[in-house]
Amino acid sequence: MPEETIVTAAVLVIGNEILSGRTQDTNLAYLARKLNEYGIRVREARVVPDVQAEIVAALNALRSRFDYVFTTGGIGPTHDDITAECVAAAFGVDLVISEPIAEIIRRRPAPPEVMESRMRMARIPRGGGLIDNPLGPPGFFIDNVYVMAGIPRVMQQMVDSLQGKLRGGRPVRSRSVTAFLAESQIARRLGQIQERFAHIDLGSYPFHRDGRYGTTLVMRGTDEAGLDAMLEQVKRMIVELGGEPVDVQSG
Amino acid sequence: MPEETIVTAAVLVIGNEILSGRTQDTNLAYLARKLNEYGIRVREARVVPDVQAEIVAALNALRSRFDYVFTTGGIGPTHDDITAECVAAAFGVDLVISEPIAEIIRRRPAPPEVMESRMRMARIPRGGGLIDNPLGPPGFFIDNVYVMAGIPRVMQQMVDSLQGKLRGGRPVRSRSVTAFLAESQIARRLGQIQERFAHIDLGSYPFHRDGRYGTTLVMRGTDEAGLDAMLEQVKRMIVELGGEPVDVQSG
Repeated sequence: MPEETIVTAAVLVIGNEILSGRTQDTNLAYLARKLNEYGIRVREARVVPDVQAEIVAALNALRSRFDYVFTTGGIGPTHDDITAECVAAAFGVDLVISEPIAEIIRRRPAPPEVMESRMRMARIPRGGGLIDNPLGPPGFFIDNVYVMAGIPRVMQQMVDSLQGKLRGGRPVRSRSVTAFLAESQIARRLGQIQERFAHIDLGSYPFHRDGRYGTTLVMRGTDEAGLDAMLEQVKRMIVELGGEPVDVQSG
Repeated sequence: MPEETIVTAAVLVIGNEILSGRTQDTNLAYLARKLNEYGIRVREARVVPDVQAEIVAALNALRSRFDYVFTTGGIGPTHDDITAECVAAAFGVDLVISEPIAEIIRRRPAPPEVMESRMRMARIPRGGGLIDNPLGPPGFFIDNVYVMAGIPRVMQQMVDSLQGKLRGGRPVRSRSVTAFLAESQIARRLGQIQERFAHIDLGSYPFHRDGRYGTTLVMRGTDEAGLDAMLEQVKRMIVELGGEPVDVQSG
């Protein structure tokens, strides 16, 4: 097999409300699934507070290590929305007013003071491009860093609008199967199957449901034929250990 | 006011299933709230895959910067459970069998092969201590790194068992109030209030509910009198801008 192109990403979640536990982040999971459809693998995620030095340090660490960085949060009109200036600082460029964003903002009339606050959302790092947002002011990108809203509904529209605009490899596919066997019952045989299919990740996720212990086995990789062959071996293992393979899924 | 003791923590979530979007992490939010009760502030979180080099690098970056590191995930009996060896590698120590954990594991009879897999869960870094777990094998800690299960029900029992055993400062308290005003309407006045109370974080969280736009304002800090005074100013601002303060909460 020729060497496969793997395109990687990190997600940077910005916001005190996630680190205080006030808000449950759901953006990472959505981004991970959606980016995988685009052929991009999320390899790391970080959550940092609304503190410039922390945001800049995380941006610079991640943008040099991964093909893409996707940020969520901190692009609204208030004092705690500092993502745009942090991205500009990370790249060592100015913030400038994006005329296309300013025009969208001006369409909705408001008193001068309110308009001035809203215009904060028109500032993007010099040299940046826009990420469409049918629900309000666009997000932006500069180089490999994509800056999106924190509100899930808005973030989802933004990442959906990037379809076809990002470089990707082959999406990761999955197979999964569940058995009412404990992890320790299957651990040794599972390790042997993993060794035979080194290019496919085999994860094991125990659960307790309806008073019974069980394990869901998840295979992830780009080799569809390999996934099918591995699934067959996992199912056979379950039967041979006295279990029954249930809830078989392909994704 | 005398300088306040601030005790900080990072959360390290370990697991491919979180980065693929298959599993929605809820451990961070639980940990953030529970640790705050113990007087510990979560200042960063990272999610890394089941890859030794990534886990070791994250552990070493975080344990040197924060008072505590709490990890979740990767301590089961299967091949993808590599957290214990990664923590040992990060500290440059051996893995040893914890006799108290081995004894708990031996209490439940099993064939030799299954018992051998289960005994993986008895391995802890040399010099480590245990974290109680009424639901199964204990977690462990070494120096300032606390290693817990990924299954939320088990992780919660583990962190609950740490009550009274960790060093903490004063818990962060909060006040919040909601208004059906857009963020941009309140942005300038809000920034002025934030400037007057520099030691209290004032966050602004917009939402769209029942066809109306609104904003929830959250104040977080340890100065209860300051929080009360700030809340009054925020409520007054809402009224002066033509809104009505609703859903006032103290936490």
